Amino acid sequence: MTRVTIWNEHIQELRDAPVRRIYPDGIHRALANGLAGRPELEIRTATLADPEHGLSEEVLAATDTLIWWGHVAHDDVDERIVDRVQREVLGGMGLIVLHSGHFSKPFRRLMGTSCSLSWREDARHERLWNLRPGHPVLDGIGETIELAEEEMYGERFDIPEPDELLMIGWFPGGEVFRSLCTWSRGLGRVIYFQPGHETHPTFHDPQILRVIGNAAAWAGRRIRMDVTEARNPAPRETTR
Amino acid sequence: MTRVTIWNEHIQELRDAPVRRIYPDGIHRALANGLAGRPELEIRTATLADPEHGLSEEVLAATDTLIWWGHVAHDDVDERIVDRVQREVLGGMGLIVLHSGHFSKPFRRLMGTSCSLSWREDARHERLWNLRPGHPVLDGIGETIELAEEEMYGERFDIPEPDELLMIGWFPGGEVFRSLCTWSRGLGRVIYFQPGHETHPTFHDPQILRVIGNAAAWAGRRIRMDVTEARNPAPRETTR
Amino acid sequence: MTRVTIWNEHIQELRDAPVRRIYPDGIHRALANGLAGRPELEIRTATLADPEHGLSEEVLAATDTLIWWGHVAHDDVDERIVDRVQREVLGGMGLIVLHSGHFSKPFRRLMGTSCSLSWREDARHERLWNLRPGHPVLDGIGETIELAEEEMYGERFDIPEPDELLMIGWFPGGEVFRSLCTWSRGLGRVIYFQPGHETHPTFHDPQILRVIGNAAAWAGRRIRMDVTEARNPAPRETTR
Amino acid sequence: MTRVTIWNEHIQELRDAPVRRIYPDGIHRALANGLAGRPELEIRTATLADPEHGLSEEVLAATDTLIWWGHVAHDDVDERIVDRVQREVLGGMGLIVLHSGHFSKPFRRLMGTSCSLSWREDARHERLWNLRPGHPVLDGIGETIELAEEEMYGERFDIPEPDELLMIGWFPGGEVFRSLCTWSRGLGRVIYFQPGHETHPTFHDPQILRVIGNAAAWAGRRIRMDVTEARNPAPRETTR
Repeated sequence: MTRVTIWNEHIQELRDAPVRRIYPDGIHRALANGLAGRPELEIRTATLADPEHGLSEEVLAATDTLIWWGHVAHDDVDERIVDRVQREVLGGMGLIVLHSGHFSKPFRRLMGTSCSLSWREDARHERLWNLRPGHPVLDGIGETIELAEEEMYGERFDIPEPDELLMIGWFPGGEVFRSLCTWSRGLGRVIYFQPGHETHPTFHDPQILRVIGNAAAWAGRRIRMDVTEARNPAPRETTR
Repeated sequence: MTRVTIWNEHIQELRDAPVRRIYPDGIHRALANGLAGRPELEIRTATLADPEHGLSEEVLAATDTLIWWGHVAHDDVDERIVDRVQREVLGGMGLIVLHSGHFSKPFRRLMGTSCSLSWREDARHERLWNLRPGHPVLDGIGETIELAEEEMYGERFDIPEPDELLMIGWFPGGEVFRSLCTWSRGLGRVIYFQPGHETHPTFHDPQILRVIGNAAAWAGRRIRMDVTEARNPAPRETTR
Repeated sequence: MTRVTIWNEHIQELRDAPVRRIYPDGIHRALANGLAGRPELEIRTATLADPEHGLSEEVLAATDTLIWWGHVAHDDVDERIVDRVQREVLGGMGLIVLHSGHFSKPFRRLMGTSCSLSWREDARHERLWNLRPGHPVLDGIGETIELAEEEMYGERFDIPEPDELLMIGWFPGGEVFRSLCTWSRGLGRVIYFQPGHETHPTFHDPQILRVIGNAAAWAGRRIRMDVTEARNPAPRETTR
Repeated sequence: MTRVTIWNEHIQELRDAPVRRIYPDGIHRALANGLAGRPELEIRTATLADPEHGLSEEVLAATDTLIWWGHVAHDDVDERIVDRVQREVLGGMGLIVLHSGHFSKPFRRLMGTSCSLSWREDARHERLWNLRPGHPVLDGIGETIELAEEEMYGERFDIPEPDELLMIGWFPGGEVFRSLCTWSRGLGRVIYFQPGHETHPTFHDPQILRVIGNAAAWAGRRIRMDVTEARNPAPRETTR
């Protein structure tokens, strides 16, 4: 069982009608509903407005994978919560960062780079190419995923070279993007997945949900251990 | 010509007699002297006590590689200077972090991890194994580097998987360490090199100086470009 | 269920008394017995002397992870079987190469390098350091594995930079070794694990068996697909 | 000075009029002429029809970077020459593989994978995105390289995860490609660069020539050392 916490800033769904039409209960609820069919995932949600953004010590200690969607309120996320998320990832928790979460504090903190990119809201086609059929995160995904409309995200994406580059996105306006990437940080796994603009029904797409569910299971914590302290051990000499 | 700035917190050399004996003018001067024979490097130094820690916008803009040694005063480094160093690395500057700099703010910022490790001040032998003879950073270095005395630094070192693992250290007390590692961050290169405890004459060793000089040249900035801002370009359609 | 085929050249156990004493039924049987307690693994064995070395098309098609031990008879492995193993790995099969298998044809074929190393049969202590507690391959393994006696294998090991470096070995004679490494090749995973000289009871050690069993499960095939042919598709234009 | 040998199978230029029109003296001569303005490169050429394919022991020993273009005659390359090229790369030589050379024997040998891909001769636009401005191989290259016509090469490209992914290609028919990749193998560097179909004037393009020249200099041999043999050293105990 992988315990998943879906975090959403949950602002645009409340104030912008076009977003609310697509995600009336919020992106977090859409994701939770979309993953409900996976018995190996136990799901809860949290939002920016919750006390401690819904990410108390207790919640994170009981979270194996944290999914993160944010866009207009990155700056409102408390640095202490960011510290906490970073520490949990280093200690073994998985973190899945979606779409505009590229500029979120936890992602930038764990990458060490600016995570900038180019973008255009033209609501055109995206094709995502599968570079690793059979990888656990791509289980059940064929040669491509096709999205009828998505925001363009283009290179250069300012990230460290991924440990694994799993998908590359193609856009009709002439751009490409490293759309599905994994890194290890401490004892945890970080995954970035590019699709998911709030004005498109991306998080209702079965294939997108499949990847997110796969990723949540694959990145799930297998250990919880504080790795942040220096140790000062005695020598352990060998006898021979 | 690679413009190198050697940064040293310069505290223990002033207050601790055993350190002063080995580095009477400070570790930064020992390094500057040790690299003086390399005509391709133009060297200046900076210390914590200097205004803006000696790392003004002007200095960093004119720095191709920044070398960093710190130990007891990591917390005293101003966050604004750390921001500035990070931004310069992302924009193309090289950064070489030495020994106890593993816990420095710039290194932890760029790695995204805690950079913790195990250590023991037992002043015994270290052997560093060369995994990449002929790599520019290891130019002139044979199968091993032998240090008669060095502080033990042991795994697990909490760093992201290096892009290149160039040397592994062996210690008689039973430890190993990823002693020479490179990563790219933004358009810049980051190198970590483990030897260099303040109570040992490590920075007088010709082979250690050779590696540091090689690294300074190899990681040197080849571009300066702000990569931190998102771009919003128009589509560039193709005609055919 | 992961279907595992354990391949052993099975020569020294038959002709050398010291080896036979430790592995009276062969290394393959020792491994099969040692993994028998893992219900998720379904195990069969194969040896050099079997028709097609026990690795017919049918056997490999029904193998999710192939474990390989060889030493004195690498040259006797038929190139057509090596072709077949390579093709299955590219198509999704896992391959775990043990100890002296570093010089086996399948491993050298998949690495593209010579896989040379330094060695010494001095039967002394080895300590293996765990760089990734919580990684599925290291499930249940603590900070180190201690082997009272093992052949020394030392750097420089002529392998491509691993995707993941999971353990580093320490030897009292002054050597280090990248002892547990993973790579992806095609759709499959390749793992190299260094301990396992035929004159030591390494494959009776519960921790070594734990790693091998973990690796067999982790690397197990999740797809079977021929990836070796070029494709010549029609364009798939987008409508908008 | 980097000593460069440009190898070309040199068949289609002799027999196919459309190819001969673009490359009347052969692709190797076009490349040699295109790189003639770089004083740091000393260039010679070799072709399939030459004795030992022009790649004698002497020639390779005096080659720092080998550039390889082949297409219709991969199978005619002698395995002994492939052994020799592989050994030289492992010993420190650089190898740059162009376009259809993805299926050449030396490249497949060094990668360990099938190097298959998808392709379409539709002579349309290609845009190559620069992921690493300022990398020595991309010195002088801006955000993109635009080719008015090129053969489509698309994913999935069956290669090991590159050490560095430097450019991604975009094609109007909906494909993407990892177009500029580097790997280390032994002490040498291998670079793959995708553009260069024989019916297009790609090797007359100044930016393409710039990348190839940069790559030849960057990957150039810095050492020559046989790394293929196992060593059996005595222990080197430490005294303290």
